[in-house]
Formats: sequence, C-alpha cells, structure tokens
Amino acid sequence: MADNKQTIFSQGERETLHKVLAARRDMRHFVSGTSVSPEVMERLFAAAHMAPSVGLMQPWRFIRVQNDQLREDIARLVGEEIKTTANKVGPRKSEFLKLKLEGVRTCAQLVAVVLAPDDGTLLGRRTLPQEMALCSAACAIENMWLAARAENIGLGWVSLFDPQKLGALLHCPKEALPIALLCIGPVQEFYEKPMLVQEGWRDEKPLVGMLFEDRWPIEGETQ
Amino acid sequence: MADNKQTIFSQGERETLHKVLAARRDMRHFVSGTSVSPEVMERLFAAAHMAPSVGLMQPWRFIRVQNDQLREDIARLVGEEIKTTANKVGPRKSEFLKLKLEGVRTCAQLVAVVLAPDDGTLLGRRTLPQEMALCSAACAIENMWLAARAENIGLGWVSLFDPQKLGALLHCPKEALPIALLCIGPVQEFYEKPMLVQEGWRDEKPLVGMLFEDRWPIEGETQ
Repeated sequence: MADNKQTIFSQGERETLHKVLAARRDMRHFVSGTSVSPEVMERLFAAAHMAPSVGLMQPWRFIRVQNDQLREDIARLVGEEIKTTANKVGPRKSEFLKLKLEGVRTCAQLVAVVLAPDDGTLLGRRTLPQEMALCSAACAIENMWLAARAENIGLGWVSLFDPQKLGALLHCPKEALPIALLCIGPVQEFYEKPMLVQEGWRDEKPLVGMLFEDRWPIEGETQ
Repeated sequence: MADNKQTIFSQGERETLHKVLAARRDMRHFVSGTSVSPEVMERLFAAAHMAPSVGLMQPWRFIRVQNDQLREDIARLVGEEIKTTANKVGPRKSEFLKLKLEGVRTCAQLVAVVLAPDDGTLLGRRTLPQEMALCSAACAIENMWLAARAENIGLGWVSLFDPQKLGALLHCPKEALPIALLCIGPVQEFYEKPMLVQEGWRDEKPLVGMLFEDRWPIEGETQ
C-alpha cells in the first residue's frame, strides 16, 4: 500500500497502531455460517507476507482449508488433543474442559500455518536455526492477527494438535512443521480481557517483572 | 491506551496499520550519539507486552543494556559470530563480509530479549512446548518493531550470537534462552527494500508460492 518507506508517522497514526495492538484478542468464539471476503483474506495474507524473516528466508506457508471433510478431520484431531491435555492438567481437569479452546468448526475460514522445510539459510541462524525460522513465521502470524483485528474480525491461534498428524492430513513433507491452526472470522464481540483471564484460568503478569537492566535479576531482588 | 475492546476500526485506521506493516524494516544502520526518550521506550515495551502468548505464559523478558562495557562485550560476541558464519558461507564469504549485519555499537538503545525458563504451562503447548514459547516471544518482538516504526525510529533483530555466551554475559539462568539483540534508535533513513535485497544478497519470494489450498502442493504442481 505505502510505497515510500521514509513515511513519517504522526501521533494520530501511532495511536491507531496502539489501539489495534490493545484490541487484538485470541478468539475462540465465532459466528457460524459467516464468511470472509476474498479481498479481506488477501489483505490478511499480504500483512503476513510483509513480516521480517531471518536471512530473508520467508519460511511461512499457508494452507487454506476449503474442504469440509478436511475441516472436520482437523476438528477431531484438535478434540483428541484437548482430551489428552485434559488428562494431564491434574486437579484442574473439569475447569479445563469447560474452556472453549478452539473455533475450528464454527469460524468462517480455517488456515493452517506450516513452517517450510529448512532451506539452508545460514545468515543469522547458525546458532539458532530452528528457533529463528519459527520466530519469523510467528511474526507473520502476528502481522496477520493485527490485520484481522483492524478488519474487525477475530483470529485465534490454535496449537492444540499433534503436528505429525496434522502434517499428514495436509500432506506436508516430513521436514515441514505445522505450527498453527488459525481460526478466522466474524465474532459476536471481542473479549474485554484475554479469554483465559476472563474465565479465571490464569492472571496476566505485569511488564514490570519482565524488564531488567544489564543482567537477569538476582533471585529475590526487585529491580 | 484504548480501553474498549469492541472498537470498530475504520478504513482509514486499517490503511494506517498496513502503512506501518509495509514501512517496517530490519535496520542495521543507526545514527550514533543519539538517544531514545524514556516515554518512547515505555511505549515500545508496552506494545511488546500486549502480545499474545500460548496459555498466557508471557515468556518474554527484556534486558536493557545500559552499561558501556557490557555493550562492548556483546558487540565483540556478535563480531565473533559474524566471523564464524563468514567461514561457513563458502564462495560468498567476501560478499557476506561486506554486509552491515548489526548496529550494536551505534544504536541508541540495545535490548536483549530472553525466553524465560519454562514455567510448565501445558495449555496449547503439550505437543510443541519450546516452539510455542518461542512464537509468543517473537510476537512480542514484532509488536515492538511495529511500534518503533510508528515512532519513526529503527529496530534491527540481531541473531548473530552464541546464545550460551550471551546468556553468560547477561547472567541468565541456564534454562533461559537469549533469542534477540534488538538495536533500537534513530536512523538516517529506512531501507526502501529489505537490506539483503538492496545489497543483492537475496531476492524476496512472492506470496503466491506460499499459499496453498487444502494440502501441501504436489511437487512441480502450480497452485
């Protein structure tokens, strides 16, 4: 859209960005029977593709799920993983099972994000190869997420799946790694707070305990 | 900033977001002897902290490098890694060594981002624990990056370092993983294209080859 990379952003534009950042939510509740226009989907993918990537490797791949049977198979896979996780959360199992953790069946558009097989890029990833590829793909998803919120539609990143089984459903090569099921579409309303906070599952921690100077803090020391 | 999560964004606001996404660059050239005001740094960290995280684990930790000797030690570490990488890139070694790959000494503010030791969060990361924590921290960095661009200052994510050695310099616990050195500060101008494209190191690939339907493409097949 903008061609001039020297753009000077105004205070109003900065505030718009922060408004989008603050309003973005990880959505699990969608309005079923809705759709997302091709133009909107195009803008979401364009946003993702503008992401940074280490060594310019652009490791993100997007698989739009259009086939109903495939979507159903994916929903079952997610259901399996929710059960497996439930059996591991211990005393909070029943509380866990009450959470709505995915919108695979009801969202307007389901998109799988897959980390491409390693292309051998060395620049900036000699010491952290898999990590930096993952981080690049995550930046693309965050861009898409913000773009979705700016379109007033929801997006939820579901990671409750066995990556090998999801890869098999999507016919991915063995060296590729599915990292996200993005549920995208219209929502009744956006959560006021992160859904896990709203449901009493977990509290948010403030930034203050995560921001240090010159070194990791000595245990018990407040910075 | 925005308190109402039900905000309906306008077309103008959407365009502002896409303008920021398009203007963001991975910067390596900074204006030395400059500074970033505390208010701006606060907005950048606030943007980062608004990121999504799997199971709400918020695994990002930020270490602001204020000590000059520490910054110099980090710059040397990055210099070592550049040499090591140069010896592995093969025939393009001299071309590689001409690239400016970091702005550790010249940027106004250096910030290390560290992945916190695993807190045991299970929700959404039973099958991909390290991967999902990394992705969450990467989303925080992307938020910060966009916020920096909207402040009209540069940010570069340097990953040319040995994470163990950087962790030692920052006194991180063994279970923590440094993933980024963020060079932040005023720049003379933003690159028109990604610097690696501008310098002829690598071309960008178009989105079209990364967007599939229902399955990973069969080799040789155009979708």
